[in-house]
Amino acid sequence: MLANICPRFFSVVALLVPLTAVSLQADEPLPSWNHSAAKTAIIEFVEKVSDENSPDFVPAADRIATFDNDGTLWTEHPMYTQLAFALDRVKKLAPDHPEWRTNQPIQAVLKGDLAALAASGEKGLAEVIMTTHAGITTAEFESIVSEWFQTARHPRFQRPYTECVYLPMVELLEYLRAHGFKTYIVSGGGIEFMRPMTLDVYGIPREQVVGSSIETKFEYQDGEPVLMRLAKIDFIDDKTGKPVGINKFIGKRPIAAFGNSAGDREMLEWVGAGDGPSLKMLVFHDDAKREYAYGPANGLPDSKFGAFPQSLMDEAQEKGWSVISMKDDWARIFAFEK
Amino acid sequence: MLANICPRFFSVVALLVPLTAVSLQADEPLPSWNHSAAKTAIIEFVEKVSDENSPDFVPAADRIATFDNDGTLWTEHPMYTQLAFALDRVKKLAPDHPEWRTNQPIQAVLKGDLAALAASGEKGLAEVIMTTHAGITTAEFESIVSEWFQTARHPRFQRPYTECVYLPMVELLEYLRAHGFKTYIVSGGGIEFMRPMTLDVYGIPREQVVGSSIETKFEYQDGEPVLMRLAKIDFIDDKTGKPVGINKFIGKRPIAAFGNSAGDREMLEWVGAGDGPSLKMLVFHDDAKREYAYGPANGLPDSKFGAFPQSLMDEAQEKGWSVISMKDDWARIFAFEK
Repeated sequence: MLANICPRFFSVVALLVPLTAVSLQADEPLPSWNHSAAKTAIIEFVEKVSDENSPDFVPAADRIATFDNDGTLWTEHPMYTQLAFALDRVKKLAPDHPEWRTNQPIQAVLKGDLAALAASGEKGLAEVIMTTHAGITTAEFESIVSEWFQTARHPRFQRPYTECVYLPMVELLEYLRAHGFKTYIVSGGGIEFMRPMTLDVYGIPREQVVGSSIETKFEYQDGEPVLMRLAKIDFIDDKTGKPVGINKFIGKRPIAAFGNSAGDREMLEWVGAGDGPSLKMLVFHDDAKREYAYGPANGLPDSKFGAFPQSLMDEAQEKGWSVISMKDDWARIFAFEK
Repeated sequence: MLANICPRFFSVVALLVPLTAVSLQADEPLPSWNHSAAKTAIIEFVEKVSDENSPDFVPAADRIATFDNDGTLWTEHPMYTQLAFALDRVKKLAPDHPEWRTNQPIQAVLKGDLAALAASGEKGLAEVIMTTHAGITTAEFESIVSEWFQTARHPRFQRPYTECVYLPMVELLEYLRAHGFKTYIVSGGGIEFMRPMTLDVYGIPREQVVGSSIETKFEYQDGEPVLMRLAKIDFIDDKTGKPVGINKFIGKRPIAAFGNSAGDREMLEWVGAGDGPSLKMLVFHDDAKREYAYGPANGLPDSKFGAFPQSLMDEAQEKGWSVISMKDDWARIFAFEK
């Protein structure tokens, strides 16, 4: 009715709405971030390194930013997403593997006894990963992973794992790229587990994913070349492995790095040791209500996945690394939040 | 004098000359290539995959081209450039290493006895590389390599090794990039030996170099993090290692691959096994006058560096890979040629 009475008014509103939205976005980068020291640190850093007239200007080719994945870009509780995938694989494959009846970590998985699995230590976990990730070609693994991402659901949020990503970090990735940065994942997770989803979810192409890997072997199947995945660790891209992986895959020292746990300490140190300005940030999980809260830094409970020890908090303070409080710094954590 | 008599004529000529040059370049890509089947194969392939209206169109993100380095982009005779570097290093370091007096491959180097060095086999060569490439930080190695590139001269051409690159291939790299391709090096050479020069020489940034590597270890020197190069092989990016390296570093199957020896066979097979169109090419060194001639394919002499066996020539013919004759297909080989 109103439109009939005053069509001109509605045309003007129709024009204004998108313009205002665009203008707000331009004035207000990182809309899911609260106005805080963390957000200010990001914007000040990005502006000074991308402004040709700034003494801190860095040419675009050297604007490399590296991001941990588990706990930095997506949720890592109640367990790493890749471990959830491995457990689902064990359950699916078990009927065809009677020999697993005497395999302790595998039995722990089948009985849902995560405490026994954890007690089997890194060796047990590695065995579960190898059992479920090897003995197939890279193409087969890719299609298994892609299918799992479409069907599996996070136990708490009841969403695909690829939706359990932090909206403020996705905005940060886009903001950095809009300022000429090349964004990389540098994760302890499996490189071939991540690659099927990083472009759609983070806008990061496959060649900009650095991760842990198992060895692959070139061979022929029916005369066609394939890469067979072997039950042998090739590279662990965690802790001291992160600078090693960065040097190997990228060959340049990043000027910005983002992590959330002790596994990211050496990556941030490596970035901080470069000449010129750099940005080092750690996501701190202190929001049990909207996501999870774990430390053991600042008195929060310890965690098997993505522990943030007090020594890391102390080093961050000493070296001027920014710590992002999920509770205080993020207005919104997930895109699916109301 | 003439200019005074007819200034208008000279202005017109001055205008015409650069216009003609530009127009020739636009009409005539790959100017150092003779008009031949090889050149036609390149142009037809590039046009069909980059034309949105072609049934063979490939999105730019998937237009990946991989290039071997030794013998494909730069000369590999009388020995691999990196071996020349290693021999120079041995000679320079020997006075400080009395323990080398009992080291057979090192002694062969010091006596200039390349036959004895060759007789020590791959193990001996690996020992020479390890001795000269490890025990220093990545930053130290980079500065040693960069300095060597500035001072060392190719024994025949008496030019820096970085000028002993094939002009037709540099044009090809540029032509591919002008059509949206991302160009990579995938070489058996050391990744950290190549990275200091690939951007200047080939327009290929450090993160697009895949190569062989030794292990590095993160440690602290005077409280500063460094990556120490260890005398331990990490990865050999040759033969079956090339598809493995491509999968690890790039995570996509290239649609074009260029090589020149048995070390590139599996890379070309891997590229050829993709869905959709692909271009596979081998440089054949059959021009002793302007560069070198070696096979043993087609009855040319065998070679310790970059051998091109008859079986590779047969496979190329059978599978429709293009073989580039340096003698017949390249009008000019080096930029420094008259």
